[in-house]
Amino acid sequence: MPQLSKKGIELPTSPIRKLVEHAEKAKANGIEVFHLNIGQPDIAAPKQAIEAVKKSKLNLLPYGPSQGKLSYRSKLVDYYNYHNINIETDDIIITTGASEALTFALNVICDAGDEIIIPEPFYANYNGFASAASVRVVPVISEFHSKFQLPALEKISDKITSKTKAILLCNPSNPTGYVYSKKEIQTLCELAIKHDIFLIVDEVYREFIHDGEPHYSVLSDEKASMHTVMIDSVSKRYSLCGARVGSLVSKNDSLIQNVMKFAHLRLSPPTYALMASEAALSAPKSYLEGVIKEYKARRNTLINQLEQIPNVEVSHPMGAFYCIVKLPVEDAEDFSKFLLTDFSINNKTVMLAPAKGFYSSPNVGLDEVRIAFILDQEKLILAATILEKALEAYKKFVP
Amino acid sequence: MPQLSKKGIELPTSPIRKLVEHAEKAKANGIEVFHLNIGQPDIAAPKQAIEAVKKSKLNLLPYGPSQGKLSYRSKLVDYYNYHNINIETDDIIITTGASEALTFALNVICDAGDEIIIPEPFYANYNGFASAASVRVVPVISEFHSKFQLPALEKISDKITSKTKAILLCNPSNPTGYVYSKKEIQTLCELAIKHDIFLIVDEVYREFIHDGEPHYSVLSDEKASMHTVMIDSVSKRYSLCGARVGSLVSKNDSLIQNVMKFAHLRLSPPTYALMASEAALSAPKSYLEGVIKEYKARRNTLINQLEQIPNVEVSHPMGAFYCIVKLPVEDAEDFSKFLLTDFSINNKTVMLAPAKGFYSSPNVGLDEVRIAFILDQEKLILAATILEKALEAYKKFVP
Repeated sequence: MPQLSKKGIELPTSPIRKLVEHAEKAKANGIEVFHLNIGQPDIAAPKQAIEAVKKSKLNLLPYGPSQGKLSYRSKLVDYYNYHNINIETDDIIITTGASEALTFALNVICDAGDEIIIPEPFYANYNGFASAASVRVVPVISEFHSKFQLPALEKISDKITSKTKAILLCNPSNPTGYVYSKKEIQTLCELAIKHDIFLIVDEVYREFIHDGEPHYSVLSDEKASMHTVMIDSVSKRYSLCGARVGSLVSKNDSLIQNVMKFAHLRLSPPTYALMASEAALSAPKSYLEGVIKEYKARRNTLINQLEQIPNVEVSHPMGAFYCIVKLPVEDAEDFSKFLLTDFSINNKTVMLAPAKGFYSSPNVGLDEVRIAFILDQEKLILAATILEKALEAYKKFVP
Repeated sequence: MPQLSKKGIELPTSPIRKLVEHAEKAKANGIEVFHLNIGQPDIAAPKQAIEAVKKSKLNLLPYGPSQGKLSYRSKLVDYYNYHNINIETDDIIITTGASEALTFALNVICDAGDEIIIPEPFYANYNGFASAASVRVVPVISEFHSKFQLPALEKISDKITSKTKAILLCNPSNPTGYVYSKKEIQTLCELAIKHDIFLIVDEVYREFIHDGEPHYSVLSDEKASMHTVMIDSVSKRYSLCGARVGSLVSKNDSLIQNVMKFAHLRLSPPTYALMASEAALSAPKSYLEGVIKEYKARRNTLINQLEQIPNVEVSHPMGAFYCIVKLPVEDAEDFSKFLLTDFSINNKTVMLAPAKGFYSSPNVGLDEVRIAFILDQEKLILAATILEKALEAYKKFVP
């Protein structure tokens, strides 16, 4: 047998992956599984997006520009301007999902052995993207009991070494729902300038702000424009996860030029998906207003339900559609497995995301799970009941 | 300014890229440019593929399975079986184009500093994929005057070191149109087994065989099944370049498991594109028969025309839709630029791909270009005339 790469062998597998098999088995046994584990919206995409594809006159699919169609980038400039982000078409590279944008960013910023600092808990795949680029993740813990706000600045600056190339943030945060304030972002921008490193911010949940001050984009801090990179995607905003269309945006021209080399390599983003994404921008304002209202209502319902469960602690998410929940169990991963293998009410159960997968530090967040509020309120109420009963049953199951 | 990665800075840019700007300027000046430089088919995709997307009932685009939908993989199994490739659904991972499949293959097989051997000339982006994975390309020259057949085996085995992890081949070849014989593939399989390395074969032009014996897939050699990886794509076969749907196929389960980790990371291939690709498989046989007949007729016309130009030598491609042409110039890159900046007939000119970009060795193929026969015969005849006249004019221009 020929040898495989160490890189591939060592690439981490998220704890959710291990649960997928159990969820499949439960379904095969006739159990309905409520997927609170994944940020897969159930709300219809803008009809403009779907219609654009159906009305397409293409009779073959040509390669498009590697940077993404100019017409789409022009409309994005207007969209970003509306959000107080002043950029031009040349500052944008359209990518195959935010996943590709993050991969590109890490590859143009870091060489093998370099480090990036990320407040944890963070989106589990950041570990994977870093690992695939041979980059080391240096986590800084943000605390459940302070809503996962930015850790004290000295805790971050203490971690900066000669190998540190960037700080990576998700704002609003997946998995915590925390929304970093203008002041927090500006402080990080100053830190990035001071140490001459990049600040990469994943802003795919930009619109989903339920409480507090408005969202402040990293690109709105114009003093730091040589040091900042913004990652975006249509997946969550327009319920177009399967489109695989994202973007990488930066005013740093050298960075953009190097990202373009990677973009040329994979030729172009997917044609139909681009059509849908471009058309989504022409949806009326009422579309996103309706979507945001719905997620806020779901959040309120879910939190209200969860707070009634004894010994369960809920972090109050200000944005996105996730929250971190502390459960009265020692091992939330084991409990999540139990839900799929040994528990159901009227043939219904729930799938959770063990928060362990969102920490890079070992043995942190073991009693936490991430819950996505991407089901309708009726289902969320039912899911909370299942969770409550399951916690009682689990106490007897694991004494 | 923060520092960028060496990897990104050093990523090679193909010579075609440098010409794109000149082509854009020519078009802006009202010149019609015949693109003989790119493998962008102009033949309609199967109507089943286009209709499937238009008839879709989706009102949002969910993530699909990272491995690709089982229904699509099942149909691919039948397609491959028809081509004497006996595989199962679990041996297939659907990718975002052959580009992603190649990136995955290099990343699971090679660590930084490892080597892969490739007969040159080869598809220019192989250099880029290797460079992005910090892998060194070790080229072995195949000769214009022997139709670019496989170099003598000892020339290849001489290059194998402890760092060699794979041999990479494109069959039928882009850019040469050479079709490796069953015997050549089997010989390489034996070599791979002997040295316990992988043989990766890019077979995206499988159907396009114009002369000689039928195509022999690397996966048909079952003795070597632990050592072989096949790369595929719907781009050329069904004129679906913009779909971005490819596949990586191997009977080596450990390799597939590691590729799955990379596949999970980027979540899923694009939804609409998968629909089109799956539906394309239900096109009647007459569709591909018609396409192949058309490319063969174009090849015959193009070669016939080129052979009438004084001092031009043409390699006779047996497959794919490219040929390498030796021009009576010292620097084919400069001549290609001349065509775009200083020459036209009735406001028409041609864009060629300097073959220099398809060699990894320096100073090889400087007088060669790759010509793709992806335009109709009338245009190909006109393009050949433009080329002939341009060669005459260039002689005066660069004495």
